[in-house]
Amino acid sequence: MEEINNIDVVPCTESDYLKPFRVHYNQNGTKKSWDFMRTHDSVSVLIFNTTSHCFVLVKQFRPAVYMSEWERTKKQPPQSAEKTEEGATEATEPESQEGQSTSEPESSSQWPPASVGVTYELCAGLVDKPELSLEEIARQEVLEECGYDVPASKLKRITSYRSGVGVTGAMQTMFYAEVSDDNCVSAGGGEPREGELIEVVKIPLHEAMTFAYDERIPKTMGVIFSFIWFHNNMSPKYKISTNV
Amino acid sequence: MEEINNIDVVPCTESDYLKPFRVHYNQNGTKKSWDFMRTHDSVSVLIFNTTSHCFVLVKQFRPAVYMSEWERTKKQPPQSAEKTEEGATEATEPESQEGQSTSEPESSSQWPPASVGVTYELCAGLVDKPELSLEEIARQEVLEECGYDVPASKLKRITSYRSGVGVTGAMQTMFYAEVSDDNCVSAGGGEPREGELIEVVKIPLHEAMTFAYDERIPKTMGVIFSFIWFHNNMSPKYKISTNV
Repeated sequence: MEEINNIDVVPCTESDYLKPFRVHYNQNGTKKSWDFMRTHDSVSVLIFNTTSHCFVLVKQFRPAVYMSEWERTKKQPPQSAEKTEEGATEATEPESQEGQSTSEPESSSQWPPASVGVTYELCAGLVDKPELSLEEIARQEVLEECGYDVPASKLKRITSYRSGVGVTGAMQTMFYAEVSDDNCVSAGGGEPREGELIEVVKIPLHEAMTFAYDERIPKTMGVIFSFIWFHNNMSPKYKISTNV
Repeated sequence: MEEINNIDVVPCTESDYLKPFRVHYNQNGTKKSWDFMRTHDSVSVLIFNTTSHCFVLVKQFRPAVYMSEWERTKKQPPQSAEKTEEGATEATEPESQEGQSTSEPESSSQWPPASVGVTYELCAGLVDKPELSLEEIARQEVLEECGYDVPASKLKRITSYRSGVGVTGAMQTMFYAEVSDDNCVSAGGGEPREGELIEVVKIPLHEAMTFAYDERIPKTMGVIFSFIWFHNNMSPKYKISTNV
């Protein structure tokens, strides 16, 4: 159980991590501009433990999710004077240029419990090492975050897609890794000295589809999609009879 | 075919759309901080036309995707001196605090074709009208972007999930809408006066699974997930025999 306190929110005038850029361009003769952020592509990995017949996920406190929930639970009247029309951004990264809230979060003593900021996610990592293949980066993440040592050659590519289209436009490639208890060489959990506090959790196969569609469990779309992908593609091998 | 030219990229010191905040907090006794951005939650809608047995998607030029592809196609040596360890962010919004590139895009005359910035997405929109239900917001997007007028009561909720966990922490709710040619009241395409240039495209049902897993077609995870969801949940009704 995470304990979160001494919370203070301030505008961020200079960030090492969030660096907005603006691109001016002509689209079919019309002058336009768009604010965006550069980021790395990423990999994510659905890990299935064949010894225990469990999926291996990571669970961690996400400050951005917590702040989003804090907004939601505030009993304040809705903000006004925003650009609200369109700017529709489907999917995986809905931050679009129009309609984005620009007001500042206020300090508040009404902080929700830390648990509202904890999410279930696939093991994942940024593609920030040009000398490594996507499979090798995925392999490292599986080892560091979840403690399983599997060769890159055993990683099966599921597919790739845009993880963001509004702000970052980055690409994510999803892999599938079968591991066994024999591959488990550490407890995982990321790099504590770099501030990672990742909990490795197991979801039994027979509970996976219920887990996937239980909206009370905070998770990413990658968890849901990959569980269904497994159901459709790997089920015969593991004799699953769950309904999707 | 989009024509994009006169491209110019500049650092963005003041953006109406991208407003970073910083939250300081104690996690289990350890002082931490995190840069994030506030944004609205969103809805997305899988639209199936029962007259033509096609999925209805939107297709548009995405500057952030274009810039990401421009980075990828540049024949420059990889950047160095970045924080590269971990910061793994699974899924739908991979921009994490660590490892994010902070160097500035340079101007270049080597711009790739506009087509690399065009993505296929579900019809979607921001939840920025507090007086409307999620279903009503989804209904408006279906009408504005795709031209189908369907009552909010006909929208079936598929599920919800975090569309971002690193930077925004926003929630997205996905709906399913069955429409027919009789519901088509306009060409859709969004609001041109607000700069939206959205193309409405139809994907025949029998091509959907091939489309979903064709990595050459730029798309969001929402497209892939929702097509598979349809395959698993609606197929019997529409007698599909495609393999997933």
